[in-house]
Amino acid sequence: MAIIQMNTTSNSKNMTTTAGKVITCKAAVAWGPGQPLAIEEIQVDIPQKMEVRIKILFTSICHTDLGAWQGKNEAQRVYPRIFGHEASGVVESVGEGVEDMKAGDHVVPIFNGECGDCVFCKSKTSNLCKKFRVDPFKSVMANDGRTRFWTKQGEPIYHFLNTSTFSEYTVIDSACVVKVDHDAPLKTMTLLSCGVSTGLGAAWNTADVQPGSSVAVFGLGAVGLAVVEGARSRGASRIIGVDINSEKLSRGEAMGVTDVINPLELNKPVHEEIRGISEGGVDFSFECAGNLDVLREAFLSSHEGWGLTVLLGIHQTPKTLPLHPMELFDGRRIIGSVFGDFKGKSQLPEFAKQCMHGTVKLNDFITHELPFSEINQAFQLLMDGKSLRCILHL
Amino acid sequence: MAIIQMNTTSNSKNMTTTAGKVITCKAAVAWGPGQPLAIEEIQVDIPQKMEVRIKILFTSICHTDLGAWQGKNEAQRVYPRIFGHEASGVVESVGEGVEDMKAGDHVVPIFNGECGDCVFCKSKTSNLCKKFRVDPFKSVMANDGRTRFWTKQGEPIYHFLNTSTFSEYTVIDSACVVKVDHDAPLKTMTLLSCGVSTGLGAAWNTADVQPGSSVAVFGLGAVGLAVVEGARSRGASRIIGVDINSEKLSRGEAMGVTDVINPLELNKPVHEEIRGISEGGVDFSFECAGNLDVLREAFLSSHEGWGLTVLLGIHQTPKTLPLHPMELFDGRRIIGSVFGDFKGKSQLPEFAKQCMHGTVKLNDFITHELPFSEINQAFQLLMDGKSLRCILHL
Repeated sequence: MAIIQMNTTSNSKNMTTTAGKVITCKAAVAWGPGQPLAIEEIQVDIPQKMEVRIKILFTSICHTDLGAWQGKNEAQRVYPRIFGHEASGVVESVGEGVEDMKAGDHVVPIFNGECGDCVFCKSKTSNLCKKFRVDPFKSVMANDGRTRFWTKQGEPIYHFLNTSTFSEYTVIDSACVVKVDHDAPLKTMTLLSCGVSTGLGAAWNTADVQPGSSVAVFGLGAVGLAVVEGARSRGASRIIGVDINSEKLSRGEAMGVTDVINPLELNKPVHEEIRGISEGGVDFSFECAGNLDVLREAFLSSHEGWGLTVLLGIHQTPKTLPLHPMELFDGRRIIGSVFGDFKGKSQLPEFAKQCMHGTVKLNDFITHELPFSEINQAFQLLMDGKSLRCILHL
Repeated sequence: MAIIQMNTTSNSKNMTTTAGKVITCKAAVAWGPGQPLAIEEIQVDIPQKMEVRIKILFTSICHTDLGAWQGKNEAQRVYPRIFGHEASGVVESVGEGVEDMKAGDHVVPIFNGECGDCVFCKSKTSNLCKKFRVDPFKSVMANDGRTRFWTKQGEPIYHFLNTSTFSEYTVIDSACVVKVDHDAPLKTMTLLSCGVSTGLGAAWNTADVQPGSSVAVFGLGAVGLAVVEGARSRGASRIIGVDINSEKLSRGEAMGVTDVINPLELNKPVHEEIRGISEGGVDFSFECAGNLDVLREAFLSSHEGWGLTVLLGIHQTPKTLPLHPMELFDGRRIIGSVFGDFKGKSQLPEFAKQCMHGTVKLNDFITHELPFSEINQAFQLLMDGKSLRCILHL
């Protein structure tokens, strides 16, 4: 099998010269928990029925990649593996039965797919596809339980979150690929794969923030700031940002946060401060830190009677919710939000248009850009809390 | 002060001969945790500003009375006290400023009041009145922090849940009194004070059960059966009843339960059974048992993606919710419901009409009737799980 040059895209019949052939290309392979990713040649199989092979042009790193790479959850450890789930690219070829995409289409992978046929996809109220919902334990393709990646020695390399975008080419179920306009700026579209959609959708879809709403966001990483952007674009009158990192608070203020709170500089519980400055509590609080103490503060910061706490952070611990049953009788509610409650294939194309038209501002989320080969440095930036999103160019 | 005869009601000017005078009458007084209630003469003060003095005609006992009488929560112990919050009666006289009621009106007390002026009462989304919400620690009147009951020796007797209906006469803030039609059957209207409104409202207002919905009710006491009646009257296609008391299961079947589950006769977790018979889980589950293990089963019995668990049971323990944060990402929701999310003064009169017109069937909830003097026997019936509601005649 020859190594196919990456610059080969589409010919006049929308068929690539690589179609139907195994592609050898570079990928960032994880060989063990916390070990630096190794940029090495891998082989990428042809897409099978209802699968799409994508040439990745941009990818970025989210905390879920970070946690999985560090192997925090032992049960989820499987190596070698290709991480990555935020990306954008161009369809190289499609498998049998794929009719909504063709070679050359601009696409965004989504880790939370939409098959269109299951009970969840047919329901208006849920975006949890039965077959392609987010599942950190899944490491093979749904079609045949095998991988589409091999090492040069022919050993399987495992998939991650339905996507595996830390590779020049990847194979993804078509249910987990969203087609966007040809004139959509792919670099910023990368952000729609996860973080921005998750945060912004939590404000728009899960909480349904209204003009004049008051909002508190706990944790001002990319997801938290996307909540801020969602609340700002909906006309929230007050957006309180909470973080122990003063740089993130400053960035938040630049992006629409109206009040900043650094718990380390406060001599009382955060919820008391928030209740004090928001007439008894905010309409909506968002937990984007993945910390149970923070979750409780977020819950208690919302207004009795109607306050809603939206849970976005990932909690690795086996602990239970730090809430007393009787506290639910105070009329506060709590709800989890996955992928911003967007049904990816149905709703992301319209969301992409709104981003292109300026309803949502994406550029502020890109704080760094590096070549793909510097991926380990991009991980370090995220770990150090210095980057929101570092876009890797492939 | 003369003892006023109970049969004195209203004259042609809607003024009672007792108006403006202290009334001496009989009440069931609690002198200590778990001690039999003592029927004795007490003195009932005149109603002050925005208060109403009511001649109680019927009262019944709910588990909240039972728990408070047993003094389960030490911090809530205060004696002597008059318990009782389910009742109906006739207005004897009103205090200054009361314009929506007059002597002779038929009324139902509500423990969860509606002042009409606070931020909650003005919000469409909450029935938690700032001033008169349910508060088991409150034992005096809001006006002056004093009681309207005294012993014959002139010592104060404390109030309970804004109502204190185990007395021939009681004084209640007008925000906690609902006027019903003169032709409404007062005996059954008693049920609207708490249990039936709580359960039925949880199905109608909190969950908004729709025709064809699937429902599971955990705990088939009066509140649970009121949920069943609410689900039945809304056209739920499947109503699963769960209880370890086979008599309650039989009663449930007679009232609309389509499938009964006795956990003691099951060799697997209840949620597995329910998921098996309801295509993956019910749309709505209701926890009416006040047990955290049951709460977890109720939560897991609801359908991923959209299932809603409504919490109605009282949990005395300091334990936290037995749910993992990550479980919220499965799209199941949990919410507490107080007084069925009814705004008492605004919505109960219409609800009373629906009961009169047969939309809701109330008679099945009355399993026993006794004279007021037999109140301790009525407590025993409830403790033994033999009665739903025992109506006491005053």
